[in-house]
Amino acid sequence: MNYKLNLSYDGAKYKGWQRQRSTPNTIQGKIEETLSKYLNKKIKITAASRTDAGAHALMQVINFDIDDGIDVNKLKQEINQYLPEDIVVRSVMRVDDRFHSRYNAKKKTYIYKIWKKDASVLPLFERKYVYLFNVPIDVASMQKASKKFIGEHDFKGFSSDKTKKGTIRKIEKIDIKEDENMITIQVTGDGFLYNMVRIMVGTLLEIVSDQRQADTIDEVFASKDREKAGFTAPAHGLFLQEIFY
Amino acid sequence: MNYKLNLSYDGAKYKGWQRQRSTPNTIQGKIEETLSKYLNKKIKITAASRTDAGAHALMQVINFDIDDGIDVNKLKQEINQYLPEDIVVRSVMRVDDRFHSRYNAKKKTYIYKIWKKDASVLPLFERKYVYLFNVPIDVASMQKASKKFIGEHDFKGFSSDKTKKGTIRKIEKIDIKEDENMITIQVTGDGFLYNMVRIMVGTLLEIVSDQRQADTIDEVFASKDREKAGFTAPAHGLFLQEIFY
Repeated sequence: MNYKLNLSYDGAKYKGWQRQRSTPNTIQGKIEETLSKYLNKKIKITAASRTDAGAHALMQVINFDIDDGIDVNKLKQEINQYLPEDIVVRSVMRVDDRFHSRYNAKKKTYIYKIWKKDASVLPLFERKYVYLFNVPIDVASMQKASKKFIGEHDFKGFSSDKTKKGTIRKIEKIDIKEDENMITIQVTGDGFLYNMVRIMVGTLLEIVSDQRQADTIDEVFASKDREKAGFTAPAHGLFLQEIFY
Repeated sequence: MNYKLNLSYDGAKYKGWQRQRSTPNTIQGKIEETLSKYLNKKIKITAASRTDAGAHALMQVINFDIDDGIDVNKLKQEINQYLPEDIVVRSVMRVDDRFHSRYNAKKKTYIYKIWKKDASVLPLFERKYVYLFNVPIDVASMQKASKKFIGEHDFKGFSSDKTKKGTIRKIEKIDIKEDENMITIQVTGDGFLYNMVRIMVGTLLEIVSDQRQADTIDEVFASKDREKAGFTAPAHGLFLQEIFY
Protein backbone atom coordinates (compact mmCIF):
# COMPACT_ATOMS: atom_id res chain seq x y z
CA MET A 1 0.00 0.00 0.00
CA ASN A 2 1.16 3.49 -0.84
CA TYR A 3 1.04 6.39 1.62
CA LYS A 4 1.58 10.08 1.03
CA LEU A 5 2.75 12.49 3.74
CA ASN A 6 2.87 16.27 3.61
CA LEU A 7 5.55 17.73 5.83
CA SER A 8 7.42 20.90 6.77
CA TYR A 9 10.90 21.30 8.08
CA ASP A 10 13.53 23.75 9.22
CA GLY A 11 16.61 22.57 7.31
CA ALA A 12 19.18 24.54 9.31
CA LYS A 13 20.60 21.56 11.18
CA TYR A 14 20.61 19.07 8.31
CA LYS A 15 22.95 18.09 5.49
CA GLY A 16 20.05 18.43 3.06
CA TRP A 17 17.28 16.08 2.08
CA GLN A 18 18.99 13.11 0.56
CA ARG A 19 20.19 10.18 2.63
CA GLN A 20 23.87 9.49 2.08
CA ARG A 21 26.01 6.65 3.31
CA SER A 22 28.76 8.95 4.56
CA THR A 23 26.63 11.80 5.93
CA PRO A 24 24.41 10.81 8.82
CA ASN A 25 22.35 13.92 9.42
CA THR A 26 19.92 14.19 6.49
CA ILE A 27 16.19 14.87 6.57
CA GLN A 28 15.38 11.78 4.54
CA GLY A 29 17.53 9.68 6.86
CA LYS A 30 15.84 11.09 9.97
CA ILE A 31 12.33 10.49 8.64
CA GLU A 32 13.10 6.97 7.38
CA GLU A 33 14.67 6.09 10.71
CA THR A 34 11.65 7.41 12.63
CA LEU A 35 9.03 5.78 10.37
CA SER A 36 10.93 2.47 10.35
CA LYS A 37 11.06 2.42 14.13
CA TYR A 38 7.43 3.49 14.52
CA LEU A 39 6.07 1.04 11.92
CA ASN A 40 8.54 -1.70 12.82
CA LYS A 41 9.42 -2.18 9.13
CA LYS A 42 12.28 -0.91 7.02
CA ILE A 43 10.73 2.14 5.29
CA LYS A 44 12.20 3.88 2.24
CA ILE A 45 10.67 7.18 1.26
CA THR A 46 10.61 9.18 -1.97
CA ALA A 47 10.30 12.97 -1.91
CA ALA A 48 8.95 15.47 -4.42
CA SER A 49 12.08 17.54 -4.07
CA ARG A 50 15.57 16.83 -2.74
CA THR A 51 16.14 20.14 -1.00
CA ASP A 52 19.67 21.52 -0.47
CA ALA A 53 21.59 21.42 2.79
CA GLY A 54 20.28 24.29 4.93
CA ALA A 55 17.15 24.91 2.84
CA HIS A 56 13.67 24.62 4.37
CA ALA A 57 10.28 23.29 3.37
CA LEU A 58 6.90 24.82 4.08
CA MET A 59 5.49 21.85 2.22
CA GLN A 60 7.34 18.78 1.05
CA VAL A 61 5.54 15.68 -0.21
CA ILE A 62 6.83 12.16 0.33
CA ASN A 63 5.44 8.71 -0.28
CA PHE A 64 6.33 5.17 0.74
CA ASP A 65 5.15 1.62 0.21
CA ILE A 66 4.32 -0.80 2.96
CA ASP A 67 2.67 -4.24 2.88
CA ASP A 68 0.37 -3.72 5.85
CA GLY A 69 -2.35 -1.11 6.08
CA ILE A 70 -1.69 1.88 8.36
CA ASP A 71 -4.12 3.78 10.55
CA VAL A 72 -3.46 7.17 8.94
CA ASN A 73 -5.11 9.23 11.68
CA LYS A 74 -3.13 7.45 14.36
CA LEU A 75 0.10 7.88 12.41
CA LYS A 76 -0.54 11.61 11.91
CA GLN A 77 -1.33 12.07 15.59
CA GLU A 78 1.62 10.09 16.88
CA ILE A 79 4.53 10.43 14.49
CA ASN A 80 5.38 14.03 15.42
CA GLN A 81 6.16 12.89 18.97
CA TYR A 82 8.97 10.77 17.57
CA LEU A 83 10.30 13.22 15.01
CA PRO A 84 12.67 16.02 16.06
CA GLU A 85 10.88 19.35 16.55
CA ASP A 86 12.34 20.78 13.32
CA ILE A 87 10.46 18.24 11.17
CA VAL A 88 6.64 18.28 11.28
CA VAL A 89 4.23 15.93 9.51
CA ARG A 90 1.14 17.90 8.38
CA SER A 91 -0.98 15.16 6.84
CA VAL A 92 -1.02 11.44 6.09
CA MET A 93 -3.17 9.75 3.47
CA ARG A 94 -3.38 6.54 1.55
CA VAL A 95 -2.93 7.07 -2.18
CA ASP A 96 -3.12 5.07 -5.39
CA ASP A 97 -0.30 2.53 -5.76
CA ARG A 98 0.92 4.34 -8.85
CA PHE A 99 1.39 7.69 -7.08
CA HIS A 100 5.05 8.79 -7.02
CA SER A 101 5.79 12.00 -5.14
CA ARG A 102 8.57 13.04 -7.50
CA TYR A 103 7.59 11.71 -10.93
CA ASN A 104 3.98 12.81 -10.62
CA ALA A 105 4.79 16.35 -9.50
CA LYS A 106 3.63 18.71 -12.25
CA LYS A 107 4.87 21.98 -10.74
CA LYS A 108 6.79 23.20 -7.73
CA THR A 109 6.97 26.57 -6.06
CA TYR A 110 9.97 27.85 -4.13
CA ILE A 111 10.36 31.12 -2.29
CA TYR A 112 13.54 32.96 -1.45
CA LYS A 113 13.66 35.64 1.26
CA ILE A 114 16.03 38.59 1.20
CA TRP A 115 16.27 41.11 4.03
CA LYS A 116 16.65 44.59 2.59
CA LYS A 117 19.90 46.41 3.18
CA ASP A 118 17.82 49.59 3.56
CA ALA A 119 15.22 47.95 5.83
CA SER A 120 14.08 50.07 8.76
CA VAL A 121 15.36 47.42 11.19
CA LEU A 122 17.71 44.47 11.23
CA PRO A 123 16.14 41.01 11.34
CA LEU A 124 16.11 39.38 14.76
CA PHE A 125 13.67 36.52 15.18
CA GLU A 126 13.70 36.08 11.37
CA ARG A 127 17.48 36.15 11.10
CA LYS A 128 18.00 32.45 10.40
CA TYR A 129 15.47 32.40 7.55
CA VAL A 130 16.44 35.39 5.43
CA TYR A 131 19.50 36.36 3.44
CA LEU A 132 21.02 39.75 4.25
CA PHE A 133 22.22 41.05 0.89
CA ASN A 134 24.67 43.90 1.31
CA VAL A 135 23.37 46.30 -1.38
CA PRO A 136 19.98 48.09 -1.53
CA ILE A 137 17.80 46.54 -4.25
CA ASP A 138 15.47 48.24 -6.70
CA VAL A 139 12.59 45.78 -6.86
CA ALA A 140 11.19 47.12 -10.14
CA SER A 141 14.55 46.43 -11.84
CA MET A 142 14.64 42.96 -10.34
CA GLN A 143 11.11 42.24 -11.52
CA LYS A 144 12.06 43.38 -15.01
CA ALA A 145 15.24 41.30 -15.09
CA SER A 146 13.43 38.22 -13.74
CA LYS A 147 11.09 38.11 -16.78
CA LYS A 148 13.98 36.66 -18.81
CA PHE A 149 13.62 33.43 -16.83
CA ILE A 150 9.99 32.87 -17.82
CA GLY A 151 9.31 30.09 -20.33
CA GLU A 152 11.18 26.99 -21.41
CA HIS A 153 14.96 27.26 -21.40
CA ASP A 154 18.07 25.17 -20.98
CA PHE A 155 19.02 25.96 -17.38
CA LYS A 156 22.32 24.02 -17.45
CA GLY A 157 24.28 27.24 -16.73
CA PHE A 158 22.03 27.87 -13.71
CA SER A 159 22.94 24.58 -12.03
CA SER A 160 25.88 23.33 -9.97
CA ASP A 161 25.52 19.85 -11.44
CA LYS A 162 27.89 19.72 -14.41
CA THR A 163 27.08 16.19 -15.57
CA LYS A 164 23.27 16.37 -15.53
CA LYS A 165 21.52 15.44 -18.81
CA GLY A 166 18.13 16.88 -19.63
CA THR A 167 18.51 20.41 -18.33
CA ILE A 168 15.54 22.04 -20.03
CA ARG A 169 13.00 23.36 -17.55
CA LYS A 170 9.98 25.58 -17.83
CA ILE A 171 9.49 28.50 -15.46
CA GLU A 172 5.85 29.45 -15.34
CA LYS A 173 5.90 32.40 -13.00
CA ILE A 174 8.19 34.60 -10.92
CA ASP A 175 6.61 36.95 -8.41
CA ILE A 176 8.80 39.41 -6.55
CA LYS A 177 7.21 41.28 -3.68
CA GLU A 178 8.56 43.61 -1.07
CA ASP A 179 7.36 44.86 2.24
CA GLU A 180 9.07 47.33 4.55
CA ASN A 181 11.93 44.97 5.39
CA MET A 182 11.94 42.01 3.07
CA ILE A 183 11.92 41.00 -0.58
CA THR A 184 10.30 37.66 -1.39
CA ILE A 185 11.01 35.95 -4.70
CA GLN A 186 8.51 33.23 -5.57
CA VAL A 187 9.34 30.91 -8.48
CA THR A 188 7.03 28.29 -9.97
CA GLY A 189 8.23 25.81 -12.57
CA ASP A 190 7.89 22.25 -13.80
CA GLY A 191 11.17 21.25 -12.23
CA PHE A 192 14.41 22.61 -10.84
CA LEU A 193 18.04 21.57 -11.25
CA TYR A 194 20.56 21.33 -8.42
CA ASN A 195 20.99 24.82 -6.86
CA MET A 196 18.92 26.34 -9.68
CA VAL A 197 16.73 28.69 -7.62
CA ARG A 198 19.71 29.86 -5.58
CA ILE A 199 21.78 30.63 -8.71
CA MET A 200 18.79 32.39 -10.33
CA VAL A 201 18.48 34.55 -7.19
CA GLY A 202 22.23 35.20 -7.06
CA THR A 203 22.21 36.22 -10.72
CA LEU A 204 19.28 38.61 -10.19
CA LEU A 205 21.06 40.13 -7.18
CA GLU A 206 24.24 40.69 -9.19
CA ILE A 207 22.31 42.23 -12.07
CA VAL A 208 20.38 44.71 -9.92
CA SER A 209 23.52 45.63 -7.96
CA ASP A 210 25.40 46.32 -11.24
CA GLN A 211 27.84 43.47 -10.82
CA ARG A 212 26.55 41.80 -14.01
CA GLN A 213 25.07 43.05 -17.26
CA ALA A 214 21.33 43.03 -17.82
CA ASP A 215 21.77 40.50 -20.65
CA THR A 216 23.52 37.97 -18.38
CA ILE A 217 20.51 35.67 -18.25
CA ASP A 218 20.27 35.38 -22.04
CA GLU A 219 24.02 34.79 -22.23
CA VAL A 220 23.89 31.98 -19.67
CA PHE A 221 21.03 30.33 -21.56
CA ALA A 222 23.06 30.57 -24.79
CA SER A 223 26.44 29.50 -23.38
CA LYS A 224 25.14 27.07 -20.71
CA ASP A 225 28.15 28.30 -18.77
CA ARG A 226 27.79 28.28 -14.98
CA GLU A 227 30.69 30.72 -14.70
CA LYS A 228 28.74 33.40 -16.54
CA ALA A 229 25.86 33.27 -14.03
CA GLY A 230 25.77 34.89 -10.58
CA PHE A 231 26.69 33.42 -7.21
CA THR A 232 24.74 30.72 -5.42
CA ALA A 233 22.59 32.60 -2.90
CA PRO A 234 22.80 30.98 0.56
CA ALA A 235 20.49 28.06 1.32
CA HIS A 236 19.01 29.46 4.54
CA GLY A 237 16.81 31.93 2.58
CA LEU A 238 15.26 29.16 0.44
CA PHE A 239 11.93 27.46 1.14
CA LEU A 240 10.16 24.76 -0.85
CA GLN A 241 6.63 26.14 -0.70
CA GLU A 242 4.32 23.89 -2.65
CA ILE A 243 4.11 20.84 -4.92
CA PHE A 244 1.35 20.58 -7.50
CA TYR A 245 0.10 17.23 -8.86
CA MET B 1 26.25 62.93 28.93
CA ASN B 2 23.37 60.48 29.05
CA TYR B 3 22.41 58.25 26.14
CA LYS B 4 19.32 56.12 25.64
CA LEU B 5 19.24 53.05 23.40
CA ASN B 6 16.23 51.03 22.30
CA LEU B 7 17.05 47.43 21.57
CA SER B 8 15.60 43.99 20.82
CA TYR B 9 17.00 40.57 21.57
CA ASP B 10 16.44 36.88 21.32
CA GLY B 11 17.21 35.70 24.86
CA ALA B 12 17.49 31.98 24.07
CA LYS B 13 21.27 31.78 24.41
CA TYR B 14 21.66 34.01 27.45
CA LYS B 15 21.56 33.66 31.22
CA GLY B 16 19.12 36.55 31.37
CA TRP B 17 19.66 40.28 31.40
CA GLN B 18 21.66 40.99 34.50
CA ARG B 19 25.44 40.87 34.53
CA GLN B 20 26.72 38.52 37.20
CA ARG B 21 30.23 37.91 38.40
CA SER B 22 29.91 34.14 38.15
CA THR B 23 27.81 33.87 34.97
CA PRO B 24 29.54 35.15 31.88
CA ASN B 25 26.82 34.95 29.27
CA THR B 26 24.31 37.71 30.09
CA ILE B 27 22.76 40.27 27.77
CA GLN B 28 23.84 43.20 29.93
CA GLY B 29 27.37 41.81 30.01
CA LYS B 30 27.48 41.35 26.22
CA ILE B 31 26.22 44.88 25.53
CA GLU B 32 28.52 46.52 28.10
CA GLU B 33 31.49 44.62 26.69
CA THR B 34 30.63 45.67 23.12
CA LEU B 35 29.94 49.34 23.97
CA SER B 36 33.07 49.57 26.13
CA LYS B 37 35.21 48.23 23.31
CA TYR B 38 33.54 50.41 20.68
CA LEU B 39 33.67 53.62 22.76
CA ASN B 40 37.02 52.79 24.31
CA LYS B 41 35.63 53.57 27.80
CA LYS B 42 34.31 51.37 30.55
CA ILE B 43 30.52 51.59 30.03
CA LYS B 44 27.91 50.57 32.58
CA ILE B 45 24.33 50.39 31.40
CA THR B 46 20.97 50.47 33.18
CA ALA B 47 17.93 48.73 31.69
CA ALA B 48 14.21 49.34 32.05
CA SER B 49 13.66 45.68 32.81
CA ARG B 50 15.94 42.86 33.94
CA THR B 51 14.45 40.11 31.81
CA ASP B 52 14.67 36.44 32.86
CA ALA B 53 17.08 33.89 31.44
CA GLY B 54 15.62 32.74 28.12
CA ALA B 55 13.08 35.57 27.82
CA HIS B 56 13.15 37.93 24.83
CA ALA B 57 12.69 41.64 24.19
CA LEU B 58 10.88 43.26 21.29
CA MET B 59 11.80 46.53 22.94
CA GLN B 60 14.12 47.07 25.87
CA VAL B 61 15.36 50.51 26.90
CA ILE B 62 18.80 51.14 28.35
CA ASN B 63 20.80 54.22 29.23
CA PHE B 64 24.39 55.02 30.11
CA ASP B 65 26.56 57.98 31.06
CA ILE B 66 29.73 58.95 29.30
CA ASP B 67 31.93 62.05 29.61
CA ASP B 68 32.48 62.59 25.89
CA GLY B 69 29.77 63.33 23.35
CA ILE B 70 28.84 60.49 20.98
CA ASP B 71 27.85 60.68 17.33
CA VAL B 72 24.50 58.94 17.81
CA ASN B 73 23.91 58.27 14.11
CA LYS B 74 27.34 56.73 13.71
CA LEU B 75 26.85 54.60 16.84
CA LYS B 76 23.47 53.36 15.62
CA GLN B 77 24.87 52.51 12.20
CA GLU B 78 27.97 50.78 13.49
CA ILE B 79 27.22 49.10 16.80
CA ASN B 80 25.15 46.25 15.33
CA GLN B 81 28.19 45.04 13.42
CA TYR B 82 29.91 44.40 16.73
CA LEU B 83 26.96 42.94 18.63
CA PRO B 84 26.00 39.27 18.17
CA GLU B 85 23.15 38.80 15.71
CA ASP B 86 20.68 37.97 18.50
CA ILE B 87 20.96 41.50 19.98
CA VAL B 88 19.90 44.44 17.79
CA VAL B 89 20.09 48.16 18.63
CA ARG B 90 17.05 49.95 17.15
CA SER B 91 17.75 53.56 18.08
CA VAL B 92 20.26 55.76 19.89
CA MET B 93 19.55 59.21 21.28
CA ARG B 94 20.98 61.70 23.71
CA VAL B 95 18.65 62.30 26.66
CA ASP B 96 18.42 64.56 29.69
CA ASP B 97 21.02 63.77 32.36
CA ARG B 98 18.26 62.91 34.80
CA PHE B 99 16.73 60.21 32.56
CA HIS B 100 16.93 56.74 34.15
CA SER B 101 15.63 53.87 32.04
CA ARG B 102 14.31 51.91 35.03
CA TYR B 103 13.22 54.54 37.58
CA ASN B 104 11.49 56.71 34.98
CA ALA B 105 9.54 53.86 33.39
CA LYS B 106 5.84 54.46 34.07
CA LYS B 107 4.46 51.31 32.50
CA LYS B 108 5.68 48.15 30.82
CA THR B 109 4.00 45.69 28.52
CA TYR B 110 4.90 42.03 28.26
CA ILE B 111 3.45 39.42 25.96
CA TYR B 112 3.37 35.68 26.46
CA LYS B 113 2.78 33.28 23.54
CA ILE B 114 1.09 29.90 23.90
CA TRP B 115 0.71 27.47 21.01
CA LYS B 116 -2.70 25.86 21.16
CA LYS B 117 -2.90 22.15 21.86
CA ASP B 118 -5.78 22.02 19.38
CA ALA B 119 -3.99 24.16 16.76
CA SER B 120 -4.38 22.97 13.19
CA VAL B 121 -0.61 22.53 12.89
CA LEU B 122 2.42 22.18 15.14
CA PRO B 123 4.75 25.18 15.36
CA LEU B 124 7.89 24.89 13.25
CA PHE B 125 9.68 28.16 12.54
CA GLU B 126 7.97 29.64 15.66
CA ARG B 127 8.85 26.70 17.88
CA LYS B 128 11.51 28.45 19.95
CA TYR B 129 9.27 31.42 20.77
CA VAL B 130 6.04 29.81 21.93
CA TYR B 131 5.07 27.58 24.81
CA LEU B 132 3.27 24.35 23.88
CA PHE B 133 0.77 23.86 26.68
CA ASN B 134 -0.57 20.31 26.75
CA VAL B 135 -4.28 20.99 27.31
CA PRO B 136 -6.74 22.80 24.97
CA ILE B 137 -7.64 26.22 26.39
CA ASP B 138 -10.96 27.99 26.43
CA VAL B 139 -9.94 31.58 25.80
CA ALA B 140 -13.19 33.09 27.10
CA SER B 141 -12.60 31.37 30.48
CA MET B 142 -9.04 32.58 30.52
CA GLN B 143 -10.13 36.15 29.76
CA LYS B 144 -12.66 35.97 32.56
CA ALA B 145 -10.15 34.57 35.07
CA SER B 146 -7.52 37.15 34.08
CA LYS B 147 -9.76 40.06 35.15
CA LYS B 148 -8.88 39.22 38.76
CA PHE B 149 -5.38 40.52 38.15
CA ILE B 150 -6.51 44.00 37.10
CA GLY B 151 -5.90 46.81 39.57
CA GLU B 152 -3.51 47.32 42.48
CA HIS B 153 -2.63 44.18 44.44
CA ASP B 154 0.13 42.68 46.53
CA PHE B 155 1.76 40.32 44.01
CA LYS B 156 4.18 38.75 46.51
CA GLY B 157 2.62 35.31 45.96
CA PHE B 158 3.12 35.73 42.20
CA SER B 159 6.88 36.15 42.50
CA SER B 160 9.82 33.80 42.94
CA ASP B 161 11.65 36.38 45.04
CA LYS B 162 10.83 35.56 48.67
CA THR B 163 12.73 38.42 50.28
CA LYS B 164 11.53 41.31 48.12
CA LYS B 165 9.97 44.26 50.00
CA GLY B 166 7.41 46.46 48.29
CA THR B 167 5.46 43.92 46.31
CA ILE B 168 2.40 45.98 45.45
CA ARG B 169 1.99 46.46 41.71
CA LYS B 170 -0.79 47.81 39.55
CA ILE B 171 -1.92 45.86 36.47
CA GLU B 172 -3.66 48.20 34.08
CA LYS B 173 -4.68 45.85 31.32
CA ILE B 174 -4.63 42.21 30.25
CA ASP B 175 -5.56 41.39 26.66
CA ILE B 176 -5.85 37.76 25.61
CA LYS B 177 -6.20 37.09 21.93
CA GLU B 178 -6.23 33.95 19.87
CA ASP B 179 -5.75 33.14 16.26
CA GLU B 180 -5.94 29.75 14.60
CA ASN B 181 -2.82 28.43 16.30
CA MET B 182 -1.74 30.72 19.07
CA ILE B 183 -2.93 32.49 22.21
CA THR B 184 -1.21 35.76 23.06
CA ILE B 185 -1.48 37.20 26.56
CA GLN B 186 -0.54 40.87 26.76
CA VAL B 187 -0.05 42.39 30.22
CA THR B 188 0.53 46.06 30.98
CA GLY B 189 1.41 47.29 34.46
CA ASP B 190 3.44 49.81 36.40
CA GLY B 191 6.03 47.20 37.33
CA PHE B 192 6.63 43.50 37.58
CA LEU B 193 8.27 41.32 40.24
CA TYR B 194 10.71 38.51 39.51
CA ASN B 195 8.95 35.84 37.37
CA MET B 196 5.62 37.62 37.93
CA VAL B 197 4.27 37.44 34.35
CA ARG B 198 5.31 33.80 34.02
CA ILE B 199 3.60 32.82 37.30
CA MET B 200 0.48 34.81 36.33
CA VAL B 201 0.40 32.88 33.03
CA GLY B 202 1.04 29.54 34.75
CA THR B 203 -1.78 30.25 37.21
CA LEU B 204 -4.21 31.15 34.41
CA LEU B 205 -3.25 27.96 32.56
CA GLU B 206 -3.87 25.83 35.66
CA ILE B 207 -7.23 27.51 36.31
CA VAL B 208 -8.54 27.02 32.76
CA SER B 209 -7.31 23.43 32.67
CA ASP B 210 -9.10 22.69 35.98
CA GLN B 211 -5.93 22.09 37.96
CA ARG B 212 -6.73 25.04 40.23
CA GLN B 213 -9.91 26.66 41.50
CA ALA B 214 -11.26 29.81 39.87
CA ASP B 215 -10.70 31.73 43.15
CA THR B 216 -6.98 30.89 43.22
CA ILE B 217 -5.93 34.41 42.24
CA ASP B 218 -7.85 36.02 45.12
CA GLU B 219 -6.42 33.44 47.50
CA VAL B 220 -2.84 34.13 46.43
CA PHE B 221 -3.40 37.88 46.86
CA ALA B 222 -4.77 37.23 50.36
CA SER B 223 -2.19 34.66 51.49
CA LYS B 224 0.81 36.05 49.54
CA ASP B 225 1.76 32.39 49.28
CA ARG B 226 3.75 31.41 46.18
CA GLU B 227 2.79 27.76 46.73
CA LYS B 228 -0.88 28.54 46.19
CA ALA B 229 -0.22 30.02 42.72
CA GLY B 230 0.38 28.11 39.50
CA PHE B 231 3.63 27.00 37.91
CA THR B 232 6.16 29.36 36.37
CA ALA B 233 5.45 29.23 32.62
CA PRO B 234 8.69 28.73 30.62
CA ALA B 235 10.73 31.81 29.76
CA HIS B 236 10.96 31.19 25.99
CA GLY B 237 7.32 32.28 25.48
CA LEU B 238 7.88 35.64 27.21
CA PHE B 239 8.65 38.93 25.40
CA LEU B 240 9.18 42.37 26.87
CA GLN B 241 7.18 44.39 24.36
CA GLU B 242 7.20 48.05 25.34
CA ILE B 243 8.32 50.53 27.98
CA PHE B 244 6.31 53.71 28.58
CA TYR B 245 7.84 56.89 30.03
